[in-house]
Amino acid sequence: MGSTETKREIIRFSRGKCSREKDLVVTEFPVTVKINGEEFVTMICTPEHIEDMVIGYLASEGVIKKYEDIKKIWIQEKEGYVHVETVKLNPYYQTFQNKRYITSCCGAGRQGFVFINDALTAKKMNDINIRIAPDDCFRLMDELQSSARTFKETGGVHNSALCDVNGIILRRMDIGRHNALDKIYGYCLKNNIPIKGKVIVFSGRISSEILLKVAKIGCEIVLSKSAPTELALNLAEGLGITTVGFIRGDSFNIYTRPERIVNAEDSLQ
Amino acid sequence: MGSTETKREIIRFSRGKCSREKDLVVTEFPVTVKINGEEFVTMICTPEHIEDMVIGYLASEGVIKKYEDIKKIWIQEKEGYVHVETVKLNPYYQTFQNKRYITSCCGAGRQGFVFINDALTAKKMNDINIRIAPDDCFRLMDELQSSARTFKETGGVHNSALCDVNGIILRRMDIGRHNALDKIYGYCLKNNIPIKGKVIVFSGRISSEILLKVAKIGCEIVLSKSAPTELALNLAEGLGITTVGFIRGDSFNIYTRPERIVNAEDSLQ
Repeated sequence: MGSTETKREIIRFSRGKCSREKDLVVTEFPVTVKINGEEFVTMICTPEHIEDMVIGYLASEGVIKKYEDIKKIWIQEKEGYVHVETVKLNPYYQTFQNKRYITSCCGAGRQGFVFINDALTAKKMNDINIRIAPDDCFRLMDELQSSARTFKETGGVHNSALCDVNGIILRRMDIGRHNALDKIYGYCLKNNIPIKGKVIVFSGRISSEILLKVAKIGCEIVLSKSAPTELALNLAEGLGITTVGFIRGDSFNIYTRPERIVNAEDSLQ
Repeated sequence: MGSTETKREIIRFSRGKCSREKDLVVTEFPVTVKINGEEFVTMICTPEHIEDMVIGYLASEGVIKKYEDIKKIWIQEKEGYVHVETVKLNPYYQTFQNKRYITSCCGAGRQGFVFINDALTAKKMNDINIRIAPDDCFRLMDELQSSARTFKETGGVHNSALCDVNGIILRRMDIGRHNALDKIYGYCLKNNIPIKGKVIVFSGRISSEILLKVAKIGCEIVLSKSAPTELALNLAEGLGITTVGFIRGDSFNIYTRPERIVNAEDSLQ
């Protein structure tokens, strides 16, 4: 599928002077997914872990429920196609795809739009015994940052990791915000990695789509270096997910479900 | 359409202690566009300049060619619908939508994937008399940054501006990368703002989709604080667009078509 970054010659302007330099530039690769011979979607992604990404995407859209629903999956590299043969198609997916649907999952009078595919596949996280200490929040974010070599080199990708308190289990990056999470989800489905008690760490903003992806994967806690959106927070409250943002230096913000951050509520001043 | 940000109570953890604070959080608003009664697309956006955004999006997808192709456009706020009645539909759009198409627009052996709607609507920028001085690159980026109040407050949106050498003509922000540019494009179409000689300044990464949007709007030059992708640069070369990235401090990088940056090539060392 080609490399995730490329060297290019650029002109660098610095302090009034120009010079020719070599620069690393992140690549984008368009992949078209065909399901049982029919075009389903085209995703623009970083060309690695493509198969995992497609598996994770199909699961989070509700096209498949488990890895075994896929009979065959193969990649036609040069043409940029991923072919998927499924055991059977979820009969709902074609009808409901892209239809908006107002679900009650967020209850309590809050406005919580989700698409029907999301309502069918997002999981509600009720387990409040899954907890994380503030020190682990900092440590996991540090680990993500320091392992994010490509991010540092090209400044163009989103990084994401599945973690437990011992550290990063799986790290994926992609030019597309959701693709990194789909790559994690697909890998877990394929290899039967249990999700229970694990945490998602994400480099970018927690939008509603990222939050829903976390719920689909089935994690109780999401940590981010960046800001969440209001819709994401409404969904997080409805779905029971703990959202921690702006993890920088020695501070962070807890936006929803603080009971999963060890000592947070007790130490409130 | 509601406000672009909301105050929420959060728990802030800092130097080992927790406190309750009010925090500004950026909003996301899902808008479903219906064309002549049929659902066309759902966009998640920042709820301002919605009408401009929809006009710009339809033009850049080739559904309309000019503002007059729209007979009527109205917003159903509470339900989040934008209804569009068109004089006639472009007969191609339904057939080709989302189909991948390899165009020759990027020629010269470079890999240049574009979607067919892009091939039909992206403009080739041949005018090399449109030029900009390095000082103006810095100044316009400064202007964008300092006017980006919402960005500073919530850290969650993309900022974009249409400029000439005198400064910013129109600034738009959105949670969605492309929406900010669609809002600019729609405003220009509606109000007959000539694009010739103008420059797009963008806060975020220049992906292939952003670059194509710039080409559709019809600007020769795009300035960014951030990194471009390789696919964006291949398209920029094919389409004749000058790409300047990483405008920070007293330096920037010129990735494509440096002839439009005043003195850049002459001063090469």
